[in-house]
Amino acid sequence: MKTIVLLSGGLDSSTALAIAVNEGYEPYALSFRYGQRHKVELDAAKQIAKSFNTKEHIIVDIDLRQFGGSALTDNIDVPKDRSENQMGTEIPITYVPARNTIFLSYALAWAEVLDCKHIHLGVNVLDYSGYPDCRPEYIGAFEKMANLATKASVEEEEKLSIHTPLINLTKAEIIQKGIQFDVDYSITSSCYDPSSDGMPCLQCDSCLLRIKGFSEIGMDDPLIKKYKE
Amino acid sequence: MKTIVLLSGGLDSSTALAIAVNEGYEPYALSFRYGQRHKVELDAAKQIAKSFNTKEHIIVDIDLRQFGGSALTDNIDVPKDRSENQMGTEIPITYVPARNTIFLSYALAWAEVLDCKHIHLGVNVLDYSGYPDCRPEYIGAFEKMANLATKASVEEEEKLSIHTPLINLTKAEIIQKGIQFDVDYSITSSCYDPSSDGMPCLQCDSCLLRIKGFSEIGMDDPLIKKYKE
Repeated sequence: MKTIVLLSGGLDSSTALAIAVNEGYEPYALSFRYGQRHKVELDAAKQIAKSFNTKEHIIVDIDLRQFGGSALTDNIDVPKDRSENQMGTEIPITYVPARNTIFLSYALAWAEVLDCKHIHLGVNVLDYSGYPDCRPEYIGAFEKMANLATKASVEEEEKLSIHTPLINLTKAEIIQKGIQFDVDYSITSSCYDPSSDGMPCLQCDSCLLRIKGFSEIGMDDPLIKKYKE
Repeated sequence: MKTIVLLSGGLDSSTALAIAVNEGYEPYALSFRYGQRHKVELDAAKQIAKSFNTKEHIIVDIDLRQFGGSALTDNIDVPKDRSENQMGTEIPITYVPARNTIFLSYALAWAEVLDCKHIHLGVNVLDYSGYPDCRPEYIGAFEKMANLATKASVEEEEKLSIHTPLINLTKAEIIQKGIQFDVDYSITSSCYDPSSDGMPCLQCDSCLLRIKGFSEIGMDDPLIKKYKE
C-alpha cells in the first residue's frame, strides 16, 4: 500500500517515515524547498529517504517569501532559549503561514496522481510549540476537505486517510519509537538555525525540545555527538 | 476591507474580481504559473488586475508537472467538441489534481500575512464541467479547515470567509453581471488551448461554455470579435 510521507528531514518526520515503513506501507517522500534558510534540512531529508528505500522522493520548490511573514523564510531572528512555558503559550515567529496546508495540498495532488490513499505526517500536539496547523482538529478538517476535493473522492469508495502517528507522543516517546524502527538520528536535522555544516544551534525551540527528549531517555543525541567528535 | 481574488484571467475569475470590487472590497489578485501551456491566461490576468486597480498582483510559480497527470500541465490533447452531456457527467482530462486546494492554500497564506479575512473565488456549479473542487460542499470544507489552520484562527475572533459569488449562476448570468460591473471581456482568456497570439480554439469545454453563454444573452463575445477584426 502506497503512502506519501511529508519529510522535512527533522526528527519527527523521519520517525513518521520509519513508522509508516514498519506498518508495511510503500513510502513516497515529499519535501519542500520553501525559501528556508536551512538547506541542511533538505540534505537530511535526502539521506533519510534513501536510508528507508523510499520509492520516490520529490522536492517541490515553493516560494513563500513572496508573501513575507516568518522567521523561517525571512531575515527575522529565530528566537533562542525560550522557556517551555513560552513555547506552550505563544505562537512563535518561526510559524510559517498556512505551511502545513500548502504541504498537505501538494501531498493530496501527488496522492491523486499515484492513486494513493494514505498520507503520513509527523505532527504532534504535546511538543507542538504553538503551531495551529499541528492540532488534531486541524488535521481532521483537512482530511474531510481532501475527501471532497479530488476526482477519486467522487469516483471511488476508498477514502484518503491522513495518518499522524506521533500526534500524542512526547519527544522522548517519538525518539524511542524511532530507535525501535532504526531511524539514524545522526543524519536528521531539527534546528531552525543550524550552521552551514549542519551543526545545530542548541538554543532554538526545536533544539531545546530535541535535547529534552534525548535527555529524558538518558541517551546522547547522535547528531550532537557527530559534531563533537 | 481587503480580499484576495484568485484570478486566472478567464471569464469567471475576472467577473468574481469585478463583483468583489463592486461590493467595496480592496482586491489583492493572486495568479499561478503552474506549468500550464496557456501563458496567454496570465497575460489576461495581468491586464484584468490592472483594469480593476488591484492593490497588488502576485503570480506564484508552482510546478505540478513534477506529479504529472493532466491535460493542462502535460502533453495530453485537450478534448474538443464535447457535448454538454459529456461535460456534465465525466470529469475531464483537463482536471488538475487538487488544483483549487493548492491555489486556496496559497491564498490562505497570503491572507494571513495581509491580515485579510476574505477570499473571492470564481467557481460555479452549473457550468462546472465536472471538477470536484468547484462544488459548494468542497468550498465549505476548505473554509472550515482554513479556520483551524492559521495563527489568526487561534488568536482572533473574525473568521476567514471564502466568497463564491458565481456559484449558482449560469455562464449567461455571469456575463451579464460582469458587463454590469465593467469587465472588459475582450482582455480575458478562457480557452484551454489557445494559439500563441491568444486566439481561442472555440472547441474545448471552456470555449463551448463561453460561446453558449454569450449566445444566450444575444451578444457577440468581444474576445472573438477582436480576433475577427
